[in-house]
Amino acid sequence: MSLTKFDGLELPASADFHVHLRDGNMMKAVVPTVRQGGVNTVYVMPNLVPPLTSASDALAYKQRLREEDPNINYLMTLYLHEKITPAVVKGAKVQGVVGIKSYPAGVTTNSSSGVLDYEVFYPVFRAMEQCGMVLNLHGECPSDHGKNITILNAESSFLPTLKSLHAQFPKLKIVLEHCTTREAVEAVNECGPNVVGTITAHHLYLVVDDWADDPFCYCKPVAKWPSDREALIKAAVSGTGKFFFGSDSAPHPITAKKGGRGKTAAGVFTQPYCTQLVLGAFEQAIERKVITEDEVTEEILTGFLGGYGRKFYGITDSSNEKIVLWKGDEVIQESFTGEGVEVVPFRRGQSTWSVSWK
Amino acid sequence: MSLTKFDGLELPASADFHVHLRDGNMMKAVVPTVRQGGVNTVYVMPNLVPPLTSASDALAYKQRLREEDPNINYLMTLYLHEKITPAVVKGAKVQGVVGIKSYPAGVTTNSSSGVLDYEVFYPVFRAMEQCGMVLNLHGECPSDHGKNITILNAESSFLPTLKSLHAQFPKLKIVLEHCTTREAVEAVNECGPNVVGTITAHHLYLVVDDWADDPFCYCKPVAKWPSDREALIKAAVSGTGKFFFGSDSAPHPITAKKGGRGKTAAGVFTQPYCTQLVLGAFEQAIERKVITEDEVTEEILTGFLGGYGRKFYGITDSSNEKIVLWKGDEVIQESFTGEGVEVVPFRRGQSTWSVSWK
Repeated sequence: MSLTKFDGLELPASADFHVHLRDGNMMKAVVPTVRQGGVNTVYVMPNLVPPLTSASDALAYKQRLREEDPNINYLMTLYLHEKITPAVVKGAKVQGVVGIKSYPAGVTTNSSSGVLDYEVFYPVFRAMEQCGMVLNLHGECPSDHGKNITILNAESSFLPTLKSLHAQFPKLKIVLEHCTTREAVEAVNECGPNVVGTITAHHLYLVVDDWADDPFCYCKPVAKWPSDREALIKAAVSGTGKFFFGSDSAPHPITAKKGGRGKTAAGVFTQPYCTQLVLGAFEQAIERKVITEDEVTEEILTGFLGGYGRKFYGITDSSNEKIVLWKGDEVIQESFTGEGVEVVPFRRGQSTWSVSWK
Repeated sequence: MSLTKFDGLELPASADFHVHLRDGNMMKAVVPTVRQGGVNTVYVMPNLVPPLTSASDALAYKQRLREEDPNINYLMTLYLHEKITPAVVKGAKVQGVVGIKSYPAGVTTNSSSGVLDYEVFYPVFRAMEQCGMVLNLHGECPSDHGKNITILNAESSFLPTLKSLHAQFPKLKIVLEHCTTREAVEAVNECGPNVVGTITAHHLYLVVDDWADDPFCYCKPVAKWPSDREALIKAAVSGTGKFFFGSDSAPHPITAKKGGRGKTAAGVFTQPYCTQLVLGAFEQAIERKVITEDEVTEEILTGFLGGYGRKFYGITDSSNEKIVLWKGDEVIQESFTGEGVEVVPFRRGQSTWSVSWK
């Protein structure tokens, strides 16, 4: 195998800077899988129903998460919403909330409360800039067929908004979440050091052909062209610190993915195999000759899987926990089940790297 | 409603120049729906398992179809395959086979026996040109991610092959089946009168956003951009005779569309509502201001729904049957069931024009 040089390698525990841990029974099924993926630090998305719009809601949710697994560092966020005022921002910062996530209205799971107009939030962004709260952007424009905007160019259509926000608030730390296009990589690179991007594991594997006939590969933003995937791979190993890992692992019950007559829920579940899948994606990219084995150094791997993100967010891992990578004969589980829920993971039934805790 | 001028209009029975009627139980479920769609003439695809590669196979299949409904004119085709020789072509022509369908290997349902290299069939194409057999092209290149070819540009990548075949065999009648892009419309228009295109009902409605999360809107070629859909609408009402209706109605059991853990089968089932759906698509396009009500004349409608295609194929409808269009309160059925199969139609549960036989 291409990256056998990493077999047995000891690394700092990974950090996943974009997770959906849900609530209730799904939370109980999903939280136990975080550490299976070699991860001890998670940046928790606020799109519960109703969304998390106050520090007290976020902290209560954190407490529920800690009851499932206390050995994870949960970094909490709020949902950008008309209830979020400059005063709410400053109060939340004092209470330890790290960032605020902006969802455009209607583009993904539980985003019906999302943003229609960014300018109305300029006072909020100013307060965030002043107190050091991070803005996490789901960077897609809603489809508008009269303007020929679909899910395929929703992200590239959003990039002028990213650049405008960065120009208006140059000291505001902004994360363009789950980048899926070459244009997004270029836009993040063109912005200053306060703008970074996260990249998922599944977007390092997928193109449009993969999700067209497989609901377990369907997510928002959708995977796009092979040339986009290769741009993401190159960004992930660029070593600039501008791009780091955020899985956007988004569990849905199997019945919401493939069952009944309703719409297919958007989301790919990667949580139990986060670190493992990133290694596998780099191996496949080496086999496709997109990158060379030499480009995937231990420093790059460590940076992408946590170092760059921790530095951007100013977070240290006081636990100093280590994981060990190894290449055995592990196969990805067919499904994960909790109390009344079944979730099918990405690349079910396929071989994978393994991770153990030191 | 926009096309109320057609309420009560009497038209010649429609012809559907691209149908998948399957075999066995599915055939028994689907054939009875042909006339429900206002259609009495169908151009029957040969992609059974195994594919129809001899006139005797095609005629035996025609007999099975006639046993289900004798009041339909079944126009039979063969599957382009190494078994098809110039002698087979000439013999099939004599026995009444109308055309030969070319599937690129692996791009759609039952296409695993399809074409990898068109040049090896040049002697076959020459024989077809000489005896007046029509070539029906599934115009897609197989995905090739190293060349950035996916299901999104599979059709536009095929167009040079169409032009090359037309240049090599200018007297060969060629149909580019189920056109889905503006580029395909332009390519057909650029070729001489022996090259035409069919357009489905569902591609007059759909864009990529529609099938992304709805397996009942997923087919090959996939629906693409809004700008492509509008180009198809304009081609359908162009009145040049270069584009006519072929539904590509492709029934699959509901379990193959949404159930289990396998891949989603490609195909949209429109057979029972062929004529009705075309009317509805034109109405929606008028509402979107893509075309005006005045552009959809009775002559255009009659031509697209059968006249242009019958002329191209040199077929007359000796039955002289008539249908009547009317706008009532009909709603598309949730599913069609036969002996052990259930098929979900396109736009299930939505309102539709109605058709009755005079």
